[in-house]
Amino acid sequence: MKVMCSVNPGHCTLIKYIFLLLIIIHLDLNTAESVWPLPQIVILSSERYQLKPQSFSFGYRRYLDTKHSCSVLDAAFKRYFSILFPGYTYDEWVFENEVFTLTISLDRHDCEGYPNQDSSERYKLNVFAGQASLNAETVWGSLRGLETFSQLVYQDDFGSYYINKTEIEDYPQFNYRGILLDTSRHYLPVQAILKTLDAMAYSKFNVFHWHLVDDPSFPYQSHKFPDLSNKGAFHPVTHIYTQSDVRRVISYARMRGIRVLPEFDSPGHTKSWGKGQSELLTPCYRGGTPSGTFGPVNPTLPSTYQFMASLLKEVASVFPDPYIHLGGDEVDFSCWRSNPYIRAFMHKMGFGLDFSKLEAFYIEKIVNITSVLRKTSIVWQDVFDYHERVRMLVEVWKQGCYLCEVRRVVKAGLRVILASPWYLDQPGPTHNWARYYNVWPLAFKGTEKQKSLVIGGEVCLWGEYIDATNLSPRLWPRASAAAERLWSNERQTSCVERAFPRLQEFRCKLLRRGIQAEPLYVGHCKHEYQSV
Amino acid sequence: MKVMCSVNPGHCTLIKYIFLLLIIIHLDLNTAESVWPLPQIVILSSERYQLKPQSFSFGYRRYLDTKHSCSVLDAAFKRYFSILFPGYTYDEWVFENEVFTLTISLDRHDCEGYPNQDSSERYKLNVFAGQASLNAETVWGSLRGLETFSQLVYQDDFGSYYINKTEIEDYPQFNYRGILLDTSRHYLPVQAILKTLDAMAYSKFNVFHWHLVDDPSFPYQSHKFPDLSNKGAFHPVTHIYTQSDVRRVISYARMRGIRVLPEFDSPGHTKSWGKGQSELLTPCYRGGTPSGTFGPVNPTLPSTYQFMASLLKEVASVFPDPYIHLGGDEVDFSCWRSNPYIRAFMHKMGFGLDFSKLEAFYIEKIVNITSVLRKTSIVWQDVFDYHERVRMLVEVWKQGCYLCEVRRVVKAGLRVILASPWYLDQPGPTHNWARYYNVWPLAFKGTEKQKSLVIGGEVCLWGEYIDATNLSPRLWPRASAAAERLWSNERQTSCVERAFPRLQEFRCKLLRRGIQAEPLYVGHCKHEYQSV
Repeated sequence: MKVMCSVNPGHCTLIKYIFLLLIIIHLDLNTAESVWPLPQIVILSSERYQLKPQSFSFGYRRYLDTKHSCSVLDAAFKRYFSILFPGYTYDEWVFENEVFTLTISLDRHDCEGYPNQDSSERYKLNVFAGQASLNAETVWGSLRGLETFSQLVYQDDFGSYYINKTEIEDYPQFNYRGILLDTSRHYLPVQAILKTLDAMAYSKFNVFHWHLVDDPSFPYQSHKFPDLSNKGAFHPVTHIYTQSDVRRVISYARMRGIRVLPEFDSPGHTKSWGKGQSELLTPCYRGGTPSGTFGPVNPTLPSTYQFMASLLKEVASVFPDPYIHLGGDEVDFSCWRSNPYIRAFMHKMGFGLDFSKLEAFYIEKIVNITSVLRKTSIVWQDVFDYHERVRMLVEVWKQGCYLCEVRRVVKAGLRVILASPWYLDQPGPTHNWARYYNVWPLAFKGTEKQKSLVIGGEVCLWGEYIDATNLSPRLWPRASAAAERLWSNERQTSCVERAFPRLQEFRCKLLRRGIQAEPLYVGHCKHEYQSV
Repeated sequence: MKVMCSVNPGHCTLIKYIFLLLIIIHLDLNTAESVWPLPQIVILSSERYQLKPQSFSFGYRRYLDTKHSCSVLDAAFKRYFSILFPGYTYDEWVFENEVFTLTISLDRHDCEGYPNQDSSERYKLNVFAGQASLNAETVWGSLRGLETFSQLVYQDDFGSYYINKTEIEDYPQFNYRGILLDTSRHYLPVQAILKTLDAMAYSKFNVFHWHLVDDPSFPYQSHKFPDLSNKGAFHPVTHIYTQSDVRRVISYARMRGIRVLPEFDSPGHTKSWGKGQSELLTPCYRGGTPSGTFGPVNPTLPSTYQFMASLLKEVASVFPDPYIHLGGDEVDFSCWRSNPYIRAFMHKMGFGLDFSKLEAFYIEKIVNITSVLRKTSIVWQDVFDYHERVRMLVEVWKQGCYLCEVRRVVKAGLRVILASPWYLDQPGPTHNWARYYNVWPLAFKGTEKQKSLVIGGEVCLWGEYIDATNLSPRLWPRASAAAERLWSNERQTSCVERAFPRLQEFRCKLLRRGIQAEPLYVGHCKHEYQSV
């Protein structure tokens, strides 16, 4: 594979690179360079300390307050101990005197809630002789620091563990770093979702955008409307997510500092809804009579809004995140147009023949429902395109000049999430990871304030050709390329040539952790993927 | 996904289709249509018989001769019992009186040797009330029949097992149906190879073309030249195939009626060989002095041929197949051209400046070595292109008008294997399985005798972007599309639209058998892939 600097070859010159990395003494792939995504500031020494699994421990800084433990961190200690020292398990009892302790301190010792859009993920990590300290504003930031720490530890040829003297100050470039999984076009077993959450944490992703339902199937088991999955899922028992499955996913994500953003896409993409909820979808007509097929949600009936309010109320209570994704993409007007009752409604409302006004009418009502539920709405860009007025967060997904669209959205004063360049399910040259790395979300003309409205980006793995058989290799390590773009300083990570060996090294770490990440090019890892 | 008849839409008409299938009564996806690849002749009845795992047995037809068992079949009975009745294991003891027995008879009760290019795979399968009979000329044919039988058994909604009254007469269109795996660009753990052999048997592939070594690494542990892997493998212990690994692969393949064709590609693609065998590769020159880099094998030294003869003698004894693949592709002449000793040899031999003559000189000597070893040589088309004289089997791999090349080869009276249309590692629209289905290896102008020289085809999974993490979903079920092309009657399988649901069904069977086969399009299987 030929890799090169496609943005600005100047970025690859060593001097500029070292300058941009601020201070890195003794560049060494085993150490700071190997952290993926690259931290903001790294000061690294060649001084190294040996770590022994039997005498390594995690601890809380004791003088801060009286609360000395935190369930999220306690669980993370166990996870990361096994990652640091494969084959060993973490025990609070330490067997030896010479202990190396990583001490955690939190500015806000709050371990109860959920991560959200405004959660700080900033952390400082210092590694000295015999100890290390990790300070973060929140528990979510400390999880990011633990991940970084785990990537700093390496083994020499004899199997001994080492870490170098290091100072890191780190924070994400963008607060929203998401991955979308589509569980409607193919059902994904809960295990496949949990495994993805593991891998997301390794790349510091923080939002799982769960595109739960769509045309092909409705796997979400609603307790208010059980027929939606009874009749709309691929199978009413084996191919659904029960309330307990959903709770498990949310809890597993939370333990890794990941939000779960549910999407209930309407009024289009709802074919499967109609199977369990009669009179929800619009009957299509042919030659003046119903054709027997159905189109988008029927926006003219009061019963539609009663149902949606009731369903969204349930969704709002099941999913703790303050955001809900309402979809709103790709609404086909032909069925609405064919239906005489819809046309009569259009006439009554004075919409003329402009069906986008009917769509706007519908979305506005749904957004109002979510507002009453104290949730912030996210919609696909289609909604913004026909209806700039509504206040919501816009996700840009269409190909072409996506930064033109980003610019239009922020000029309208709305916040934006960028997904267009990261459609990883798309067939195409799968090895071309650099295409997902060389994305510059802020490379448009705009004020600083406008640019601050770009809150992040999202990797989308739509389900037409994806299920549990190929999800992991399709996603990893290419999604990690997007992860560095969204976390790291753009100027420090603009050179594909420099990123390539780092990403190869990171991909080997993913394999070692059991993530089925596909190879970038010819080569090998010390520990190959074994679970065939 | 839009599927359609891209060859001849007429083939899709129901009447013609039924005619071509000869006789199929009561078309039913659960039964004969669901066998993949499609058998040559199927006579199917709607009469069905229930099977009970506790009273199902395999048996040998007793009156044929005194030998009543065969280790290849005994092992196959165990495998297929677990495939027929997941969760049950096969025991020779039968618990009930009402036994359904599948009785095997072989025309040649020879279970000792290895399958080869001329082995008959023909079989006849008859399913009646309470029993079934499977007759084949060879044990390899009976394995194909067992596979077909296993695909005829289905479960109803209550979990009961059934098979319909059926008569099948079947044989392959082409005798050579191969899959190439490349273990040099990435090392593939032995388990990944064995799993591929399992899946190959399910699609009736019969040749595992093992592209063992190449530029990046030399994982084959030679007992005569241990330094080749000691110095040329990615790792001398973890990333090699020991003699015992190789024996295991050969034996596992044999039990499934699969040949193992080893490839030792030279004189190009040999960088890794040079690490463990000094003076084998040509030193390249720059400005009159050696540059320190090396090119293809040095064809001017007697030591080269001594080494090759010794290595190939070992290979010929380790691999029982009567064929050896000698490679011969993509030789870069620039290094030869730079070397004054090579140029002097060219002059002495009267080759002028035509380095393809030097290449021909080399290959001819290697082919002679293999002839002495009583092995038939296979080479990539490059060798034929510059050297039509040599008698060997030619594998066509280049893109473009590959049938033009096939025609040239058979006109020269040589046998040919077609690989060009089946490069499955290539990045591209991965869901487009129909591109691998709509291949017509005999669609060139030629005599019947010339066409008979096309002995088959091969799916190539080169290793640049492939390792154990993505091998299975990249290969399956797309390779199965090629499998039907190579096994079944072309006229009965010319319609993509008809093949699509059958291939979807077959892919679900692969999942059920633990093969990580990726989805063709939106949908679900009763048993999804679980081993995440």
